Amino acid sequence: MHENNHQKHDSALIVNEGIEQPPIVNPYISNFYKKNRIKQLTVKEYVDGIKSGNTTTLSQAITLVESNLPEHREIAREILEECQKHTLESMRIGITGVPGAGKSTFIEAFGGMVTARGHKLAVLAIDPSSERSKGSILGDKTRMETLCSDPNAFIRPSPSGGSLGGVARKTRESIVLCEAAGFDVIFIETVGVGQSETAVHSMSDFFLLLMLAGAGDELQGIKRGIMEMSDLIAITKADGSNIDKATMAKALYSNALHLFPPSESGWVPTAMTSSAVTKEGLEEILLKIEEYFLMAKGNGYYLQRRKEQSRYWMYETINEGLKNRFFEDSRITGKLKDFEERVMEGKLGSFAAASELLRLYNENR
Amino acid sequence: MHENNHQKHDSALIVNEGIEQPPIVNPYISNFYKKNRIKQLTVKEYVDGIKSGNTTTLSQAITLVESNLPEHREIAREILEECQKHTLESMRIGITGVPGAGKSTFIEAFGGMVTARGHKLAVLAIDPSSERSKGSILGDKTRMETLCSDPNAFIRPSPSGGSLGGVARKTRESIVLCEAAGFDVIFIETVGVGQSETAVHSMSDFFLLLMLAGAGDELQGIKRGIMEMSDLIAITKADGSNIDKATMAKALYSNALHLFPPSESGWVPTAMTSSAVTKEGLEEILLKIEEYFLMAKGNGYYLQRRKEQSRYWMYETINEGLKNRFFEDSRITGKLKDFEERVMEGKLGSFAAASELLRLYNENR
Repeated sequence: MHENNHQKHDSALIVNEGIEQPPIVNPYISNFYKKNRIKQLTVKEYVDGIKSGNTTTLSQAITLVESNLPEHREIAREILEECQKHTLESMRIGITGVPGAGKSTFIEAFGGMVTARGHKLAVLAIDPSSERSKGSILGDKTRMETLCSDPNAFIRPSPSGGSLGGVARKTRESIVLCEAAGFDVIFIETVGVGQSETAVHSMSDFFLLLMLAGAGDELQGIKRGIMEMSDLIAITKADGSNIDKATMAKALYSNALHLFPPSESGWVPTAMTSSAVTKEGLEEILLKIEEYFLMAKGNGYYLQRRKEQSRYWMYETINEGLKNRFFEDSRITGKLKDFEERVMEGKLGSFAAASELLRLYNENR
Repeated sequence: MHENNHQKHDSALIVNEGIEQPPIVNPYISNFYKKNRIKQLTVKEYVDGIKSGNTTTLSQAITLVESNLPEHREIAREILEECQKHTLESMRIGITGVPGAGKSTFIEAFGGMVTARGHKLAVLAIDPSSERSKGSILGDKTRMETLCSDPNAFIRPSPSGGSLGGVARKTRESIVLCEAAGFDVIFIETVGVGQSETAVHSMSDFFLLLMLAGAGDELQGIKRGIMEMSDLIAITKADGSNIDKATMAKALYSNALHLFPPSESGWVPTAMTSSAVTKEGLEEILLKIEEYFLMAKGNGYYLQRRKEQSRYWMYETINEGLKNRFFEDSRITGKLKDFEERVMEGKLGSFAAASELLRLYNENR
């Protein structure tokens, strides 16, 4: 369902739903500007607009952050550097769950409760698989009608295309911009497959896993290891004839979570039920999350983790940069496949192959 | 307890318990040879010796694999390339558990059962923290008296010193040598902390987690995520007054494991109890492991995973090589700490810092 084509919508809050940008400066650039309706502002104008809470300027700045054009990267860097100074003590909440777990309806209902409590909410996403034609995970406006028209909510689809590393960078930088614009609660949504949860986990303070009732087939898509990184499991769709199954699932997961090693934060993860229809359980979940932040800020874990995440992303980006350069090197690209095949067939040792490729790469450098 | 100093022992099966090797060719090299009693053989002599099952030659070859001397690396590479052709359908079993979980006593008892069933067993280890003075995790002979004198068992302590990546490489290459020598069951032991389990998991076919009864404090040391990568949880010390607690723990963990997403292999992990004292449960664990291999070989997962592991280690080694070169570069070393601090203090963006460091590194290359 997420992958259906969808109509472009005019909401000021949803812009740039996955338009691919030209990789280098070329004649398309003027079309690109028209298409995205970016007015060229100065860094100061961008920063002032963002700080005043202007979501149109915020959207345009995020588009710059997402752009691969060198001159956009430079202005984006300057905007980010300024905004970095104006972040606030936000709650960054990662939300994951397999397709069908009811993420969109949960976020719609839960997000409404968050803004009703006086928060400003930004909803971002990481979905490395999204492509122009498919639209992105948050693009389906019909699923979030209320939240989309909520003046205290800002919804931004996943950056399109590119590697997970690239998409993750863009989302993480967008968090900085949203916080500078006064959004104090950030949802970072992802589908519950692949490596994207690890990326989301590495930029969230709190990790929320959405699960359907029943411990059977629904789990198929969830990667092993996700449960153990969750701070809270919310069983969705706990309404109507589903209530008994959901309550049972809650008990099961609660027991399972107790068996996990304690988390570094000192937090004891639990399972709760919720319904986007009856709204039951949503307030309890919000209270639980607020309880977490109270604890984590109190014991210093919140700040410590933020610092470690910043460091993590610095090193992660360096590693990605080194790898990209290596794997795009003309001396490597031609040989890699052959080496990989010989290694997989057991004809060449993994380490011997790596040494040889590194030697080739470092020669005459 | 593992960290006490221990006497050197003369057993032919345990050699080189963590002697640090000089990093470059220097006058100590002759002492090094004397110390380690390495006769210089030709590649063919090494390979023939290994293939004939000569454990002294095997030990010497492993010492070469563990050496950091360039000329040792070259001969080691040739030996490995030959041995690579003579590996067999072995069972590589990763074993982990926190200190105190009874790893050594379990391996002693369980290993004896494995050799009694006609297998040849090699016990290797990964312990990145081991240092010369502390001895290595498998060095405490008194804990494995029977297995040490078992002609069908070969015990080799963890390679000493160096990064996890380096230690892991050495252990993984040692597996190749052991298999060429006819050892068809390989235990790869590690302590249940840090990143070493991921390394062990990436070179094992089967991952066994040892746990003490009781789901409380014993879990403190186990990292989150380990339970979900386990194919079997063995509750140890299920004897005497501990039996009830162990049986209860088994039921608890069995339930918890059912809640995990199914593993790629199609295997359903379980929990079992065992006692190294009464030997109860050990045979059942071996049968369970054999059942796994029957299944995984039948559905092709065994071979597929081996191939993927080989590829994984090739790329992992490349990444490590690229990182080492970067972080040892004189243009980087002087600046890294300052950048890291500014990033952690929120004065500099993670991505801006990474870009700048990469730019410095790639300049004039």
